[in-house]
Amino acid sequence: MTASSPFDIRLANLRARMAETGTDLVALGPSSHMAWLSGVHPHGDERPVMLLVSATYAGFLMPALNAAAARKDTDLPFHPWSDDQGPETALAELLQASGATAPGLSVVLDETMRTDFALRLLDALDTPRRRFTEDTVGLLRASKDGEEYAAIKAAHRLNDEAVKAAFAALKEGITEREVVALIQEHYKANGATLEFCSVCFGESGAFPHHYPGETALAQDMAVLIDTGCRLNGYPSDMTRCGFFGTPGEDYLEVFATVERAVQAALEAARPGVPASAVDKAARDVISEAGYGANFLHRTGHGLGIDIHEPPYIAANSDAILAEGNVFSIEPGIYLEGRFGVRLEEIVILRADGPEIFSEMPREMQRGT
Amino acid sequence: MTASSPFDIRLANLRARMAETGTDLVALGPSSHMAWLSGVHPHGDERPVMLLVSATYAGFLMPALNAAAARKDTDLPFHPWSDDQGPETALAELLQASGATAPGLSVVLDETMRTDFALRLLDALDTPRRRFTEDTVGLLRASKDGEEYAAIKAAHRLNDEAVKAAFAALKEGITEREVVALIQEHYKANGATLEFCSVCFGESGAFPHHYPGETALAQDMAVLIDTGCRLNGYPSDMTRCGFFGTPGEDYLEVFATVERAVQAALEAARPGVPASAVDKAARDVISEAGYGANFLHRTGHGLGIDIHEPPYIAANSDAILAEGNVFSIEPGIYLEGRFGVRLEEIVILRADGPEIFSEMPREMQRGT
Repeated sequence: MTASSPFDIRLANLRARMAETGTDLVALGPSSHMAWLSGVHPHGDERPVMLLVSATYAGFLMPALNAAAARKDTDLPFHPWSDDQGPETALAELLQASGATAPGLSVVLDETMRTDFALRLLDALDTPRRRFTEDTVGLLRASKDGEEYAAIKAAHRLNDEAVKAAFAALKEGITEREVVALIQEHYKANGATLEFCSVCFGESGAFPHHYPGETALAQDMAVLIDTGCRLNGYPSDMTRCGFFGTPGEDYLEVFATVERAVQAALEAARPGVPASAVDKAARDVISEAGYGANFLHRTGHGLGIDIHEPPYIAANSDAILAEGNVFSIEPGIYLEGRFGVRLEEIVILRADGPEIFSEMPREMQRGT
Repeated sequence: MTASSPFDIRLANLRARMAETGTDLVALGPSSHMAWLSGVHPHGDERPVMLLVSATYAGFLMPALNAAAARKDTDLPFHPWSDDQGPETALAELLQASGATAPGLSVVLDETMRTDFALRLLDALDTPRRRFTEDTVGLLRASKDGEEYAAIKAAHRLNDEAVKAAFAALKEGITEREVVALIQEHYKANGATLEFCSVCFGESGAFPHHYPGETALAQDMAVLIDTGCRLNGYPSDMTRCGFFGTPGEDYLEVFATVERAVQAALEAARPGVPASAVDKAARDVISEAGYGANFLHRTGHGLGIDIHEPPYIAANSDAILAEGNVFSIEPGIYLEGRFGVRLEEIVILRADGPEIFSEMPREMQRGT
């Protein structure tokens, strides 16, 4: 680890942000936040693991068992504890080293941390001043740096290939699960892992969180593929739709409406704009077409180390979009008993608007 | 769901336990606790999901998106919330329905729940009386019923086959990762998934949490295989060791010591005995042989829906073992730069002592 590692830069940026927000201590669990800040991403289990950051110190509470593996990823100091001892003493020493012993400190907690870790820390700290990471780690993570852009781009390049191959392989009788297997093989052959994969034939597409099953493809079925891989620690995510056979007017109209909603959201997304305004732009198109009640979810989610992370593109989001934000735009219309259409792009927000990661057109995929 | 489903019985048992412990409300996250109590095991993400149980009510706070899928697994009422609305109103309604509106209630929190879910609930409840699930859900889950025994047995039968096949496949030049792949294929071909798999050749075995790599097997290397699959929702877990070539006196002595430690722990494990006494029984054998400092972890962990769950067999555990408890006995000796030996059995505690799930002998595996 050299002085200019991305982790050193992120730690310096976090301390600057802590100063701006009057934060005394940031406590991260074995999470993506920890991975982003330090490169350490231990398997989360019942043994308490934390990374504490104060103005003057940064160190880990670490099960002795995991110390050797984690040591490869960081030069930050460890406060190890063994199963014999339990974590109490090591945590007290870490708080001492962090200068976090006075009552009433202002603490930022990793919202994804297990409750028992967090309450153990809060009980030790004796402070009511706690909040989550939105305006510190979360805010910094939301704007991606050059390394992150490159990793997300590579994951999308591979995803494009896999989705094109999947649509090309569609034929009568193939099952949803067989298409998932094909996509998974494509990822694996290229050094990536499956992050998730939803393949929906016909009515299945009306359920946004459908689990692919044994449904076989038949003539005149809608097809929806929403899939992502993970490559070098970063994921991809994309949805494309199409029709096997001859689509009716209803499908064509719904498809065109969703495409217009995507375009409206892309137009609305600019630095300084509230995330809720992007949601509204997409939602208005769909509502005006009479399908408001059939758009069952928010318009999008941030994407980084986590496939779902801030900023959320939703009506109740209070995020303001910033340059470097990476998020999805994925409006959909779901008609129970018939079909669903969702079109999803992951974009990075540039000064003049969104740049789309995928290079696969959103046009309707066709097959017979 | 009929009146006699295992979930109805578990809910009735939980309410009896809540009455005995003066607990007003139990709050579970999207966790194994929830799966055990209700059959619902949603994918955990940033959208709050909770199952609240009071004396008179049990219901879910549930993202509307996941309601259709979860509905297949339970008849309990849902309080759904959409991305538009956020979860506040649905949570308030759920607390109202649960009769949990007075301040100062006694609340049990799922220790694995995300901190933001738990603090949202605690802030709404206004009570300092909170603890985790040790003496309610955790206690009940620790004693397995007949269905759980059968599932764990089936997972171990498959594991035995996979581990035997792996040792049989050892040959010069095969890598740790190739052995992992072979074990994974065996699981997959039998309808199970890989839960975890550690294959260690030579010095790697000295790290209890070693990640299998490209190390190739050569003459006179120790081999350690610790692996488990998941079949019908329940896992297996077992460690066997052996030697490729001719073991030296040092390896033979260490192996024999670990075997004696396993036997001592098996002898000590009886209903009513503290878990810490079982740890001590194994540890004393190893310490008396002069390897106390090389036994780097607790003697065991409970196993159920989670591969690690209470009771923990550790010096600092305050669990008292009970009939029906399922846990590992897995002492080990780790000699950095040389090798490691760990022998692990999963047992269920019967009135007269432990019954071992695996039917594969613990004897030293040999190959050349």
